[in-house]
Amino acid sequence: MLETFFSPKAVAVIGASRDPHKLGYGVIRNLIEYKFRGDIYPVNKHASEILGLNCYASIEELPDGVDLAVVVVPAGVVPDVLKQCGKRSITNAIVVSGGFSETGGEGAELEDELKKVAEENGIRIIGPNCIGTIDTHTPVNTTFVVGMPQQGEIGFISQSGAMVAAVIDWARGAGVGFSRIVSLGNQADVTETEMMDVVGSDSQTKVITAYAEGISDGKLFLEKAEALSLKKPFVILKGGRSEKGAAAVSSHTGALAGSEVAYSAAFRKAGVLEAGTMEEMFDWARALAWQPLPKGKRIAVLTNAGGPAILAVDAIVKAGLEISELSDETRTYLKSRLPKAASVNNPVDVLAGSGPATYTLALEALLSDETVDAVLVIQAPQDWFLPVSLAEVVGETAGLHNKPVIASIMGKASVDEALNILHKRRVPNVAFPERAASIFKAMIQRKEWMEMIDFRNKHFSGIDKRDVSGLIKENKWDELVQQYDIKLPEQKVAATMNDAIRISSNIGYPVVMKMISDKYSHKTDIGGVKTGLRSEKEVREAWSIITEAAEENQAKMKGVLIQKMIENGQEVIVGIKRDPQFGAMILFGTGGTDVELYKDTSTAIAPLCEIEAQNLIDNTIAGRKMQGWRNAPKADIEAVKETLIAMSYLAVHYPEISELEINPLYVMKEGSGVVAVDVRGALSDEG
Amino acid sequence: MLETFFSPKAVAVIGASRDPHKLGYGVIRNLIEYKFRGDIYPVNKHASEILGLNCYASIEELPDGVDLAVVVVPAGVVPDVLKQCGKRSITNAIVVSGGFSETGGEGAELEDELKKVAEENGIRIIGPNCIGTIDTHTPVNTTFVVGMPQQGEIGFISQSGAMVAAVIDWARGAGVGFSRIVSLGNQADVTETEMMDVVGSDSQTKVITAYAEGISDGKLFLEKAEALSLKKPFVILKGGRSEKGAAAVSSHTGALAGSEVAYSAAFRKAGVLEAGTMEEMFDWARALAWQPLPKGKRIAVLTNAGGPAILAVDAIVKAGLEISELSDETRTYLKSRLPKAASVNNPVDVLAGSGPATYTLALEALLSDETVDAVLVIQAPQDWFLPVSLAEVVGETAGLHNKPVIASIMGKASVDEALNILHKRRVPNVAFPERAASIFKAMIQRKEWMEMIDFRNKHFSGIDKRDVSGLIKENKWDELVQQYDIKLPEQKVAATMNDAIRISSNIGYPVVMKMISDKYSHKTDIGGVKTGLRSEKEVREAWSIITEAAEENQAKMKGVLIQKMIENGQEVIVGIKRDPQFGAMILFGTGGTDVELYKDTSTAIAPLCEIEAQNLIDNTIAGRKMQGWRNAPKADIEAVKETLIAMSYLAVHYPEISELEINPLYVMKEGSGVVAVDVRGALSDEG
Repeated sequence: MLETFFSPKAVAVIGASRDPHKLGYGVIRNLIEYKFRGDIYPVNKHASEILGLNCYASIEELPDGVDLAVVVVPAGVVPDVLKQCGKRSITNAIVVSGGFSETGGEGAELEDELKKVAEENGIRIIGPNCIGTIDTHTPVNTTFVVGMPQQGEIGFISQSGAMVAAVIDWARGAGVGFSRIVSLGNQADVTETEMMDVVGSDSQTKVITAYAEGISDGKLFLEKAEALSLKKPFVILKGGRSEKGAAAVSSHTGALAGSEVAYSAAFRKAGVLEAGTMEEMFDWARALAWQPLPKGKRIAVLTNAGGPAILAVDAIVKAGLEISELSDETRTYLKSRLPKAASVNNPVDVLAGSGPATYTLALEALLSDETVDAVLVIQAPQDWFLPVSLAEVVGETAGLHNKPVIASIMGKASVDEALNILHKRRVPNVAFPERAASIFKAMIQRKEWMEMIDFRNKHFSGIDKRDVSGLIKENKWDELVQQYDIKLPEQKVAATMNDAIRISSNIGYPVVMKMISDKYSHKTDIGGVKTGLRSEKEVREAWSIITEAAEENQAKMKGVLIQKMIENGQEVIVGIKRDPQFGAMILFGTGGTDVELYKDTSTAIAPLCEIEAQNLIDNTIAGRKMQGWRNAPKADIEAVKETLIAMSYLAVHYPEISELEINPLYVMKEGSGVVAVDVRGALSDEG
Repeated sequence: MLETFFSPKAVAVIGASRDPHKLGYGVIRNLIEYKFRGDIYPVNKHASEILGLNCYASIEELPDGVDLAVVVVPAGVVPDVLKQCGKRSITNAIVVSGGFSETGGEGAELEDELKKVAEENGIRIIGPNCIGTIDTHTPVNTTFVVGMPQQGEIGFISQSGAMVAAVIDWARGAGVGFSRIVSLGNQADVTETEMMDVVGSDSQTKVITAYAEGISDGKLFLEKAEALSLKKPFVILKGGRSEKGAAAVSSHTGALAGSEVAYSAAFRKAGVLEAGTMEEMFDWARALAWQPLPKGKRIAVLTNAGGPAILAVDAIVKAGLEISELSDETRTYLKSRLPKAASVNNPVDVLAGSGPATYTLALEALLSDETVDAVLVIQAPQDWFLPVSLAEVVGETAGLHNKPVIASIMGKASVDEALNILHKRRVPNVAFPERAASIFKAMIQRKEWMEMIDFRNKHFSGIDKRDVSGLIKENKWDELVQQYDIKLPEQKVAATMNDAIRISSNIGYPVVMKMISDKYSHKTDIGGVKTGLRSEKEVREAWSIITEAAEENQAKMKGVLIQKMIENGQEVIVGIKRDPQFGAMILFGTGGTDVELYKDTSTAIAPLCEIEAQNLIDNTIAGRKMQGWRNAPKADIEAVKETLIAMSYLAVHYPEISELEINPLYVMKEGSGVVAVDVRGALSDEG
């Protein structure tokens, strides 16, 4: 039924107007001007006709068969209008009117009423406080915004109406086509996640893009987005990533913005590509819609000028991609076809005097070279030949191969026609070649995610749920992680100094002593931890210092933990955090006392498969260090992966744990495992 | 005399052509078409007239008074042409012809000849292998590139001809004006640094921009660029920042690309703003040419739509700037003038229905608020009023204040006229509001640099040169740094084990023992360093282990250094590196064995003033940690600053030191100084 928003049979505009300054006029104008082929019924009791269409005085009088109402009446009247729509079996409504939850208290109550009425009458609603929908293929345009993008393959879902207006205007100027566009407004009923499904299942839509300020249901989003990403590329631009931006979101829509880290982790998990700017979102979308994914990250640059190619190479390398080392065959061939002074190494510079034929031969050679995964073709402005000729040959040659090609026919004043040709040939163009780097990176990110999902499906191995509710209730975090096969150092609690001496001698020196107290979690801060104790004398001294520290800080000491001191391991942190939107997240990074200073941590949504655990490790400096740094031997990365996977299932199995942190987890050398030296947890309020 | 390149009296075009496909035709066409008011003399022995101008068969026959020759003849003929120019007292020549050093061996020889001839004949040369010069105010256009930017205040110096062609085409499309443009080609004679002076001293030029792949003389550049930056903003885009890009530079022009870190440090030192992309360079240039610098980093955002404002806030915060907390007065006032549902907090959202008058009142209030240092005005596309009206009021209101204003009238198809108005009012516009963040950041960077220079001039305190050449020759690095008032831990060399025991007891436990050997610099890697020795027994054990390690690794041991072990200090690294282009650089950051892993280092060009030393510290995590992290007391930052300044002068005084590194330098708590635990140096080959 949501499909009706994009392919209605007959549209009634409630609050249609003859006044060109009113929104109710704009909606009628757009329906007519952008050639909606179904019936259009203006409803306005004061007019007999609007823009040549017969006007109806009331919803009651409308002919049968209307399936979509666009509502442009004052907020207070909307619930009543919906009731009447219900009576006439109108199943879908776009409520353009503002004055609901975005204005605070009273408006929010009105929105609740609207929701109730819609539900009772079986009407699905987009809005209120929205701009409406566009489908360029149907075609239908229910918005009041002047202009309509040309037909294309990009779907755009927006939680900001202004962004839709901006995109429509920009798309017309840039000549980028769209399939479907929708502005969701306050999302009283239809959510971004439902809309992803509708836009995603449209056969004309090859890429889904979205501007989102919040997600209505994190878990559902993860599930739907992942399913969607498997079928089509899904690019999102998240507004409110900074704290100040998030505050503005909440004053803007009242939605919860959520943490930047959690959103990024969720997008990564679900294979959603997160763009940094609007320009980037649509750069990526065009390339993903038009070009095949690259097989690897080795890029070739073909150019007629050094400077722009150098800037592109800088950007490509900065994005973590590689500059292909061309094969000898390709270089020999290029030498035979290019001018003598041309560079046949990557970037390949055909020099200013070369024309479309030389470009064709060079591009063909690069695309045929198995060391090349993708090609960027740069043309700096020149007067030898028309940019359109280059556009033709680049488009045609690219079409003969299954590797992505991005063009950068530079300049602005003289290249419009060339861009049209490239677009027709489905080759994206960027005005500045540096922008290609981010496009290639996004394409490779998608390719790698798809391989990861493939791996996960083939090698899925979850971890069984262990019965540990009792331990959790009693905050026995040490024993809890042991149940999930995570090892602790040998340790025992001492109640008296003599106890401490006996235990230390049994465990064997060196030992660590830690105050046990409810009051302080960072016990090092008050001198409650003593490490590297190597004799009875040192244990005695440490006991005195710790008990004194407890007294000074008025911490009720429950004893002292004596632990075998682990030496020569690498300190990492493994943690469970819980995001209000997306649930359990696993954190990994450099551990010890300076965690928050160095911020060398990475986060992923639980549960983790092996490859996700590996990616989490690879994203950190701690991960690089584990591979064997300076004189240190390679660390037991396999054991760390097992620990991350175990923790991720522990988090999934027991949602009542709000936080669980192992810091430090000591990683020993390859084959020698890991040891959880300090484990702390917390229960959620409901837990 | 270099001025003549931009304001010649009479121009001869050697190699002028009647064939529209030849460069020698394009040059004549541009001189005529872009209204050069002096005389134009085509030289071509086969033609009698070109484009209506009388043609001369030889340079000999030219009338007197020619001061600039544009040379477009085959490479081999160029030296002879220059000789003839010399005879006719032509003082300046632009050599467009290619086929010189950029083609390798023979071409390089030819270029040497050209240089010699030019020098002998007192001719200054731009090129060869260049595009020429443009001055929009003279006006003169000696290039063959179709199109000419409109008059403006941005000067552009380029080491890539293609970049000039791209910029001309882009500037015409974007409506951005330029004052002077020059392409330098192979720089056989006139260098980028000389050209900076010529373009910088032009009264029409308000901002200097440059695309540079290399710098001809680092020290001279530093000096000239700093002097220039004091007068005018100077923005540079550096090509070849990545290793691959640098390789492409060297195959492109044969120039040395130099290290990215050194270039960035040099630009920072000289107050040159380093842009990341071409778009960024010209975004910054426009704003710096047109708008005043902000007094601080508190930005206000004024908008008619939530989404775009949120993206802008995200970008502003990410750039390290602040979102101003508006004063109560401003908020009260805004409440009285804006629609009820409008947001009167920053970002200020006037809502979609508001027009130019509301924008005017709100912008006036924001610019009058002393909590606001700069304003971004966003207008999402709407149908209530014409964007031109907003452009008028924003331009006019901005002109009443002395704070920078950037506009983002979004969209593309409908805003061209509005942009013209904004440009006339000298308010820069960006199509996507996020781009404003980088502009404001660049402006603030310039303001802070100017304050720094001001401070330096007022508080300059160098350090006297000490007579330490003898110590340097003998590689006595420990003693060397002591001469510059940097303290070492108490220490002594032991030749035998008994020696070691006696010395340790005198110094007091704990001690550190370090093998002394020429062969290994990272002695920890082979077990040559033992720390935390607390008894005679441990010293004995350590002695055995170290001597064994020396034997195993065939390192000739020259004794063992016994050092008082410093505890509870923060480990940092302070180093001198020498860049082939810019000379002595000072490095600071997190020290210890993981320096290269964490890469928490920052670099500055020596010598350092106090504020530069502070900036160097502030750029690192080590610096943040010194401010007092967790339970650690605040560290002695003053002592670190003194050490950095001392090292920077040591580097300047003794250029024969190629490298000097203190790692770790132990920083004790505030007031307790620093201790250089390990000092290593190296002499340059010439030293």
